Amino acid sequence: MREIGVGIVGGGYMGKAHSVAMSSVGAVFNTQLRPRLEMICASTAESAERYRAAFGFKRSTADWRALVDDPDVEAIIIASPQITHRAIAEAAFARGKPVFCEKPLGASLDDSRAMAAAATKSGAANMAGFNYIRTPASQLARTLIARGEIGDVIWFRGEHTEDFYADPDTPASWRTSGSANGTMGDLAPHMVNAALALIGPIAQLNAMIETVHKTRPGGAVTNDDHGQMMCRFAQGVMGQMYFSRISTGRKMGYAYEITGTKGAIRFDQEDQNALWLYRANEPEELQGFRKILTGPAHPDYLPFCQGPGHGTGYQDQIIIEAHDFLRAIETGDPVWPTFEDGVVVNQVIAAAMASAESGTWQDVNAF
Amino acid sequence: MREIGVGIVGGGYMGKAHSVAMSSVGAVFNTQLRPRLEMICASTAESAERYRAAFGFKRSTADWRALVDDPDVEAIIIASPQITHRAIAEAAFARGKPVFCEKPLGASLDDSRAMAAAATKSGAANMAGFNYIRTPASQLARTLIARGEIGDVIWFRGEHTEDFYADPDTPASWRTSGSANGTMGDLAPHMVNAALALIGPIAQLNAMIETVHKTRPGGAVTNDDHGQMMCRFAQGVMGQMYFSRISTGRKMGYAYEITGTKGAIRFDQEDQNALWLYRANEPEELQGFRKILTGPAHPDYLPFCQGPGHGTGYQDQIIIEAHDFLRAIETGDPVWPTFEDGVVVNQVIAAAMASAESGTWQDVNAF
Amino acid sequence: MREIGVGIVGGGYMGKAHSVAMSSVGAVFNTQLRPRLEMICASTAESAERYRAAFGFKRSTADWRALVDDPDVEAIIIASPQITHRAIAEAAFARGKPVFCEKPLGASLDDSRAMAAAATKSGAANMAGFNYIRTPASQLARTLIARGEIGDVIWFRGEHTEDFYADPDTPASWRTSGSANGTMGDLAPHMVNAALALIGPIAQLNAMIETVHKTRPGGAVTNDDHGQMMCRFAQGVMGQMYFSRISTGRKMGYAYEITGTKGAIRFDQEDQNALWLYRANEPEELQGFRKILTGPAHPDYLPFCQGPGHGTGYQDQIIIEAHDFLRAIETGDPVWPTFEDGVVVNQVIAAAMASAESGTWQDVNAF
Amino acid sequence: MREIGVGIVGGGYMGKAHSVAMSSVGAVFNTQLRPRLEMICASTAESAERYRAAFGFKRSTADWRALVDDPDVEAIIIASPQITHRAIAEAAFARGKPVFCEKPLGASLDDSRAMAAAATKSGAANMAGFNYIRTPASQLARTLIARGEIGDVIWFRGEHTEDFYADPDTPASWRTSGSANGTMGDLAPHMVNAALALIGPIAQLNAMIETVHKTRPGGAVTNDDHGQMMCRFAQGVMGQMYFSRISTGRKMGYAYEITGTKGAIRFDQEDQNALWLYRANEPEELQGFRKILTGPAHPDYLPFCQGPGHGTGYQDQIIIEAHDFLRAIETGDPVWPTFEDGVVVNQVIAAAMASAESGTWQDVNAF
Repeated sequence: MREIGVGIVGGGYMGKAHSVAMSSVGAVFNTQLRPRLEMICASTAESAERYRAAFGFKRSTADWRALVDDPDVEAIIIASPQITHRAIAEAAFARGKPVFCEKPLGASLDDSRAMAAAATKSGAANMAGFNYIRTPASQLARTLIARGEIGDVIWFRGEHTEDFYADPDTPASWRTSGSANGTMGDLAPHMVNAALALIGPIAQLNAMIETVHKTRPGGAVTNDDHGQMMCRFAQGVMGQMYFSRISTGRKMGYAYEITGTKGAIRFDQEDQNALWLYRANEPEELQGFRKILTGPAHPDYLPFCQGPGHGTGYQDQIIIEAHDFLRAIETGDPVWPTFEDGVVVNQVIAAAMASAESGTWQDVNAF
Repeated sequence: MREIGVGIVGGGYMGKAHSVAMSSVGAVFNTQLRPRLEMICASTAESAERYRAAFGFKRSTADWRALVDDPDVEAIIIASPQITHRAIAEAAFARGKPVFCEKPLGASLDDSRAMAAAATKSGAANMAGFNYIRTPASQLARTLIARGEIGDVIWFRGEHTEDFYADPDTPASWRTSGSANGTMGDLAPHMVNAALALIGPIAQLNAMIETVHKTRPGGAVTNDDHGQMMCRFAQGVMGQMYFSRISTGRKMGYAYEITGTKGAIRFDQEDQNALWLYRANEPEELQGFRKILTGPAHPDYLPFCQGPGHGTGYQDQIIIEAHDFLRAIETGDPVWPTFEDGVVVNQVIAAAMASAESGTWQDVNAF
Repeated sequence: MREIGVGIVGGGYMGKAHSVAMSSVGAVFNTQLRPRLEMICASTAESAERYRAAFGFKRSTADWRALVDDPDVEAIIIASPQITHRAIAEAAFARGKPVFCEKPLGASLDDSRAMAAAATKSGAANMAGFNYIRTPASQLARTLIARGEIGDVIWFRGEHTEDFYADPDTPASWRTSGSANGTMGDLAPHMVNAALALIGPIAQLNAMIETVHKTRPGGAVTNDDHGQMMCRFAQGVMGQMYFSRISTGRKMGYAYEITGTKGAIRFDQEDQNALWLYRANEPEELQGFRKILTGPAHPDYLPFCQGPGHGTGYQDQIIIEAHDFLRAIETGDPVWPTFEDGVVVNQVIAAAMASAESGTWQDVNAF
Repeated sequence: MREIGVGIVGGGYMGKAHSVAMSSVGAVFNTQLRPRLEMICASTAESAERYRAAFGFKRSTADWRALVDDPDVEAIIIASPQITHRAIAEAAFARGKPVFCEKPLGASLDDSRAMAAAATKSGAANMAGFNYIRTPASQLARTLIARGEIGDVIWFRGEHTEDFYADPDTPASWRTSGSANGTMGDLAPHMVNAALALIGPIAQLNAMIETVHKTRPGGAVTNDDHGQMMCRFAQGVMGQMYFSRISTGRKMGYAYEITGTKGAIRFDQEDQNALWLYRANEPEELQGFRKILTGPAHPDYLPFCQGPGHGTGYQDQIIIEAHDFLRAIETGDPVWPTFEDGVVVNQVIAAAMASAESGTWQDVNAF
């Protein structure tokens, strides 16, 4: 067991989530590396100090370079606005320090590529923060598919739907402008990442995007409310996806269905401790989708000892993520998704934006 | 109360279903018109006689023209192979007799158009048999949307998925060749019809279709196993659909989700007595999708007197359909979907086939 | 194939349901015996004639003895008030005619015993009308338990809950007086019958009953609103049940859970086409309750040919029941539940009433 | 913001859960009191030291008195075997230190009463650890009932069912002897506590308990596998409960249904982020149980900012519990359930054991 000094850039929603995770992960998973909350950085000295006290860090700063340069900061979590990701990551990698970066990776595809290149060059551990894929249920889905439990996959449907902008009277905000803040920039990457993790690379796609509510109290809306696409995966699978921030009634609609020749899988994050599995090789009389409750028998389940059904929640995903990041640092083996994987997500989003504009099929590899 | 002589062409699966429905509908709904099972027609005299005895008709024939011409046959149900629909319908309309025709209407778009023209010319009652839309739950969905209960619709997702060909070892059959027998010809029309009923006409679409299992024991497969599309409805709504006969685990996956600005609706035929409704105008603390069990308070529910929850099944849909057809005959008012509506379904399918071939967006009205 | 003249006593809710069933059952199941709707009896000549016309009988009468005596009435369905059951059944059995009697059998335990004795003496087919147990899902449950699919049963929980009297402002009616019309007389027999069918005889029980709303607009309520009991089955299984007509939100809460040493079963009539099955002998990683959708692979499913998921509804239960009654007549073999089985249900109810009054455990066999 | 030194007695399953909770609670809820993990006590110096390192405490000890006496230990969590609870609690209260004690409170009803008396005498904050009631969903249920949202409660059904001993081949262990370790001692208190929290005190009850598998590999089983009871709450409500460790298929079956005159509530911990609510005062056409996903609008939800549906898990319950304990310490106001409330749970269990033995109704207040 050995301590590792952690620095987090950003004290907002995700900064807090990662701070809590780093406080808990050692005890929860009995990790070899034990995070020490060394330093937090925020936009002003005042806010940084407030976060420091609230989250339990030793030191605070308003200068991310100071954090990156500090010798006691041995691993860095980037949870600041997307525009800042590249510079921080490059500086950290230049010092050989491991970096965990919130999704989506860079503010542009070029930025993401530069970040991945810097990661590769440094050889340091790197990981992109698509936390929803880390639930035990989704990890189980991935495992079952990989070992052929549902046969050859023939269809995929995914969605990431929420309703925080469903009401047209919800005011405009920083979220309603800037492509990174629209649905394609904010929500779609989660499900695209899931598709890549569960099925593999997407070869071609055809997309539509739309701003349904073009004005809101306080101003015009200049990014997308929802989007959908059809696609062909590289291995041949046909699929469709949908992303929305105006999906009335959906609170955390990160959901997918996967059809294989020998079975099928269904998942909905709104009931995140259940994975639905159908196996075709049963007597017809007994066939049906079964609801598997995740527990100690499943990958990445928090090690509670008494059996399944105790349940994991949102914060647990972040703790599992922290555990995976520590493991990447400790072992030197890449843990999915790396920055390279994060770049692929950006490519898919870029292809979708181009397709929606042109109305034509796009090759993802052309981006 | 007055009797009406009914003739049914076809004694197979749907012929039987309609025979049973016509036996029951009078007592169930206490209809003014009371069907008398006058004559049934099948491909041979022997099979026709067997169906007559089994279903309780007075007479049988192997000649559909004899049935259509018979003066005691006052209304005609077409449940024979699709290739025969047009000739039978035209003959019946020529005699001014009401016609109910199983979906999809004609063997080609031209046939369907000719049938609709004949219907219009005759002025006789006419109805196309998309029975799944007739469940009380789907009728309730239609009613709620029409009166604005979920606000303006902004998204639609529909599927018709089954798994009767999911196993690659299921032998080839008449179902695995001929475009009418593939998924786009057999299953897709049901959900396209639902989309038209619930949302309205589709303006443009972009589709993919695929034969996943290209050979089966007994021969090559020459029609489609599954297909998907993105679309824009005429009123502006964005949507996506999926149709499959290889959807492992899905038994009757006639399902849709509809998002509106003030609410949302979800339905799955596998639990056909429930409609899920979300209303946005509730205190945040109490918001959630509610599961409405259909009952006497809902449109077209079978008039059982003791309250909701008794449940309708597949055969009940056909009885409700029979009731609607009798009503159309009795009142002279069209009951949805008429033959004209059936033509629109065919147009959408034709556009989808063209789109899948060309890889480009298609205007439905161009077909 | 041969015709059998059917006479139905009672034209109300259940009389109608049985009339429709007898119209449909021959075609649906392609039965050897084909019912002919010969005569219907109601309390006045006018109402009987109205029912005759509405349901399609040949003749009507206000005198049940005329119906029973009529030579063309070869089988009798009793759907009249409970007080009349005994006399009609005894008269029918005296003439050697098969009798189907709506539940609960007699107006008193003595009446029921006399009816069962008359049935035995006559040797004619006899069957008690607990229709809910006839769904394919409940028949499947029975089959699975009987062949040991869930191992030894160790616990049973059942309920029959509805909410038609949940609102205290619903007026008093004939239902709110008379022990046959309270929850214990009206609803409890259904679930007690299910318990007997699924698990076996009940040895001892301890019950509570209660009239929650003691007055309603229009008068006092003199029978029970709800009741519950703990019991020990003869084979040793422990169980509990609940019955209610004031169970707010429950529309058809005929539901049970059965735990065995190797599996478990759950069912709720509100989703009557699904049976939930858990099998313990699976890898821990894949364990979960599966939702089996009833279809052609299951007992008593209506013979629709295209596969599971088409769904049965309330009226289908009555058709299945009609099929079973015809089979009992045709083969001479008893079909469960016979009148003898119906007596056992009455015994359990009688024991429960006695227990609720005394506050002590009661042996069912003492009644 | 001010630090408070926390000492935890016990490093097993619950000791770990509380350690993690105390590490996280400050940052999660931004509490005024900030726990400092001061000292952990375990049965040997070695194990204590191992827990110290694993969970992040400053010091360790094998002597709980040293922990209780230590001036830097300002609040004490008891997570050691039940037999030790009383002595530790009494010592802590004697020093005026706040105590949180795992359920069930004492090893006997007398012990529990002594502990509650000591708590009262000291005036220090005290709380009993029934963590399942702390989910946001159950807190919402409690709130809704308390403010009359479902009218007057008329029925309650609760269960705590798991299946960790469902397999008769699971070996005997410390869990299979000793009344505290049977189902009535281990699982029942959770649901009894829920019943008290949601409905109120239980006046009378009648229970059955049973050891289904009387021997297991390794020895005889001398405590109960499952138990059930009927009861009457002090306010008049009728109810029933079931508790089991052999409930095949149930992983965390902490579930209840509550019927009121104006609505109903259903909950199952296996989907712990959902509360089902039915409201009777809606148009009949729109009535149904709604699935409320817990979120920021609900009591005690972890303060994640982006909206509902993110989900809480098992560990979050313990964090919420830690938050409540800190609040009790800070404000001096009792937070439910106090030690006094814990005593009532013990009374109910004692009455149930007596009833099961005698086969008669028991007054809870007589215990």
